[in-house]
Amino acid sequence: MNRKLRMGMVGGGTDAFIGAVHRLAAFMDNQIELVCGCFSVNPKISKESGKLYYLPENRVYETYQEMFEKEAQLPEGERMDFVTIVTPNFVHFGPAMMALDNGFDVVIDKPITFTLDEALKLNEKLEETGLTLALTHTYSGYPAVKHARKMIADGKFGKIRKIYAEYPQGWLSSNIEDQGVAQASWRTNPKKSGKAGCMGDIGTHAHQLAEYISGLRVTELCADLNTYVPNRQLDDDGAALLRFEKDATGILLATQVAAGEENAIRIRVYGE
Amino acid sequence: MNRKLRMGMVGGGTDAFIGAVHRLAAFMDNQIELVCGCFSVNPKISKESGKLYYLPENRVYETYQEMFEKEAQLPEGERMDFVTIVTPNFVHFGPAMMALDNGFDVVIDKPITFTLDEALKLNEKLEETGLTLALTHTYSGYPAVKHARKMIADGKFGKIRKIYAEYPQGWLSSNIEDQGVAQASWRTNPKKSGKAGCMGDIGTHAHQLAEYISGLRVTELCADLNTYVPNRQLDDDGAALLRFEKDATGILLATQVAAGEENAIRIRVYGE
Amino acid sequence: MNRKLRMGMVGGGTDAFIGAVHRLAAFMDNQIELVCGCFSVNPKISKESGKLYYLPENRVYETYQEMFEKEAQLPEGERMDFVTIVTPNFVHFGPAMMALDNGFDVVIDKPITFTLDEALKLNEKLEETGLTLALTHTYSGYPAVKHARKMIADGKFGKIRKIYAEYPQGWLSSNIEDQGVAQASWRTNPKKSGKAGCMGDIGTHAHQLAEYISGLRVTELCADLNTYVPNRQLDDDGAALLRFEKDATGILLATQVAAGEENAIRIRVYGE
Amino acid sequence: MNRKLRMGMVGGGTDAFIGAVHRLAAFMDNQIELVCGCFSVNPKISKESGKLYYLPENRVYETYQEMFEKEAQLPEGERMDFVTIVTPNFVHFGPAMMALDNGFDVVIDKPITFTLDEALKLNEKLEETGLTLALTHTYSGYPAVKHARKMIADGKFGKIRKIYAEYPQGWLSSNIEDQGVAQASWRTNPKKSGKAGCMGDIGTHAHQLAEYISGLRVTELCADLNTYVPNRQLDDDGAALLRFEKDATGILLATQVAAGEENAIRIRVYGE
Repeated sequence: MNRKLRMGMVGGGTDAFIGAVHRLAAFMDNQIELVCGCFSVNPKISKESGKLYYLPENRVYETYQEMFEKEAQLPEGERMDFVTIVTPNFVHFGPAMMALDNGFDVVIDKPITFTLDEALKLNEKLEETGLTLALTHTYSGYPAVKHARKMIADGKFGKIRKIYAEYPQGWLSSNIEDQGVAQASWRTNPKKSGKAGCMGDIGTHAHQLAEYISGLRVTELCADLNTYVPNRQLDDDGAALLRFEKDATGILLATQVAAGEENAIRIRVYGE
Repeated sequence: MNRKLRMGMVGGGTDAFIGAVHRLAAFMDNQIELVCGCFSVNPKISKESGKLYYLPENRVYETYQEMFEKEAQLPEGERMDFVTIVTPNFVHFGPAMMALDNGFDVVIDKPITFTLDEALKLNEKLEETGLTLALTHTYSGYPAVKHARKMIADGKFGKIRKIYAEYPQGWLSSNIEDQGVAQASWRTNPKKSGKAGCMGDIGTHAHQLAEYISGLRVTELCADLNTYVPNRQLDDDGAALLRFEKDATGILLATQVAAGEENAIRIRVYGE
Repeated sequence: MNRKLRMGMVGGGTDAFIGAVHRLAAFMDNQIELVCGCFSVNPKISKESGKLYYLPENRVYETYQEMFEKEAQLPEGERMDFVTIVTPNFVHFGPAMMALDNGFDVVIDKPITFTLDEALKLNEKLEETGLTLALTHTYSGYPAVKHARKMIADGKFGKIRKIYAEYPQGWLSSNIEDQGVAQASWRTNPKKSGKAGCMGDIGTHAHQLAEYISGLRVTELCADLNTYVPNRQLDDDGAALLRFEKDATGILLATQVAAGEENAIRIRVYGE
Repeated sequence: MNRKLRMGMVGGGTDAFIGAVHRLAAFMDNQIELVCGCFSVNPKISKESGKLYYLPENRVYETYQEMFEKEAQLPEGERMDFVTIVTPNFVHFGPAMMALDNGFDVVIDKPITFTLDEALKLNEKLEETGLTLALTHTYSGYPAVKHARKMIADGKFGKIRKIYAEYPQGWLSSNIEDQGVAQASWRTNPKKSGKAGCMGDIGTHAHQLAEYISGLRVTELCADLNTYVPNRQLDDDGAALLRFEKDATGILLATQVAAGEENAIRIRVYGE
């Protein structure tokens, strides 16, 4: 196909955080172009964002439902090829399912959905349609991470024995969710974030990095989760002993109460 | 202007090194699009590169002369707005001057030109035309560098006293230019690289970083240049004591014979 | 008492490893002098060592039994005040018990004894006699460690929440115990080393450091021990989830198969 | 000689700084014992210090003159073998010369003397008597430093090309010498410290380390010295381009106005 891939976007208005990261990643190697979007539940923000992203007005939509319906009617070669969903955790399932129903491949920022049940439904749909759903984890994108993965895949370390993945943060060391810090409020709120706090937010990154770099899946774990800050509803700290395929073992550490740390994600992998 | 800036490119075919970096930097925030180019002195490589960059055939040119002439005749809103020149050092002046003559702004990777005389001629032309020529230094693009510059500009360090900039490399510790290493051959060849070896290649980066971050210009220096590897024609090592505006002082270190180092560029700035 | 403390030593001949460390630590602040010793099971080595340590011949003994008996008969002010035992793990209990029986305080390098039962017997004897037995852990001696302990004791970190202690080594990544490496042979031999391999040898250091610096005792743990190297009899790798007094939690990591590491002991403690 | 070396000390009372370091270094490998001293110009401090160092009263002297005279009259095997002088810079020459005149070897903390003229006189005396004078630089004592020196002497790095030695401190970034900080007052006072400020105090350490580790002497240098803090009498900052024997070159950096640094001494040596 001698043209760029055409991307639509749900979420990611100029007032949002992770959408800009997805656009940057999409654009940097010149293989993808943004062709349409519904960038906000607020139609005014969506419209203004589309303008700043250099989209024509008729490809900026008021709802994702409208977007999927209208794009599906455009001719091949004009309509989008896939959609990137960068909405809050609890608005992942709806647009993803509707995109698949309309024949579009899907990219979603982790977590895949709000509940396991929703994820299983998406999986069913994928098997049925043969479409692709890609779940993005930002740390996989770093050249050093890809290089490490390649070295291990090439056997440079021999058989892998130990994998230590850790992600200490300190920003939730006190109860800032009740002091109007928006990022803290939704992440510690089970209605917005889901069942998992620290483990869902950053433990997943450590876990994904461990599997991505080593090429080995976790098969068993023993974990200890804690909530250190009074009145917090979700875990803000945890650790797990891990067992991987092929006799590798390791540790996963994730905490948001390591006062003084910012995003000190780190992984160590040892082979024979 | 509610459209992206239109960039042309001279050099930067699929077989080249720094062109890809310029394209990535140009694309990542979605404000610039590539509209035309002459990507190689080899027309076949130029044509194939243009195809892989998703350009229409009629905007991929065989020579930069042809490109500037034809683009200049296109209507505003279609023709390129500026050109990025990513050719070897000795092919900077020609395309830059011709671009300016045809009314295009210019971006060039350092060094500006092969000789001081050429640089002065470009300067004259810029003053005459009011056009812009931007000289790029890759390290300025890092978020940490921009943050440091901002902290100093905001007075967080008080008046600046000391600036230590260093760029040790080790890859030219032996005579690899005579063993067929292409990157080493042209960089140690005065006919391709110009009068300066190590200082021109990487000392300039340390120098630019020092001035860019501190906001202070070097006013005086005392330097010691060396050529350590036998039969090498240009300096492969050097250091300088620096004096800056406003009583700051410092050191610049650049070497390509620090065996074991890769690109260990580092800067330290101390204020009151 | 306006004189230095008088130390005797069991083990620590010129052919041994840890004895020299104990002497250095004892001498460096000029409060302790070496007055006698039985430095080896080999009387010749013991005698020569004593000479090199500047002891008079009549205070260098052939057996520790002889040493305790003869020293006990010397007048106060001439006889040793305490004994430092720096023999292999399985020769800790015998000299320690005999020293206590003869009224001497005791210093032993960890581990305290070869079996739990022996340790309990020593404890009984200590309660009966009122004498002192000090168990040494080398890392406690570093100024940085003492400083960290002081900062926490002074409340600089607030209430402690997280303690991560780790000790990765790589030297036992392959079966060097069967290739004539003496240090590896006894450490992996349950008859010389006791029931614990990696955890006993270096996990104990991480554990002691965690408790020493934080001032908190481990109350519960969940551990996973492994033996990675074929034909090895003891654990060479492990990790544990820890719970401490006062709601602190943490991780202990100890491994001897982290290929590439030397003695990368590290501790992190986070408070409120 | 089957006995420890007998050390006397001038300076180093319990109220002093560097004397304790010398004693620790002297005692730690059990080859030297302290037998006498004149530990302060204040006889009371000298006497009390001697008691805490476990010396008999008759070996603690009121003046260094008295010490050298009386010790010289004691029989060999009882009198001191050498003296360590740990007094302020301006009291080095006097005791050193008198010690040599009385037949004692001498250890002095750097700088050797207050003026070049005094140093030359000591040198003359040494040639005349055949005695030894050792000038101590504390950083030479670190195992890592000795190991580096050994690696280079063994030819592990090939011929040495580059030597970068640096010692940035920040504690004199403001005029603390006029705010009652004793360590700052004498170090910035030419009557106590001599002609050199920063270069004499810490530049000498970087210089000594460079020569000690590389085994090469500096043959030429070009330096830039500055005084950044208003009203300060001596240099508080400087740097030098260095040329060494055998075509090595390098940089020496020493500053006391690198705000934020403590004792960030560092050396890098590169060979072929």
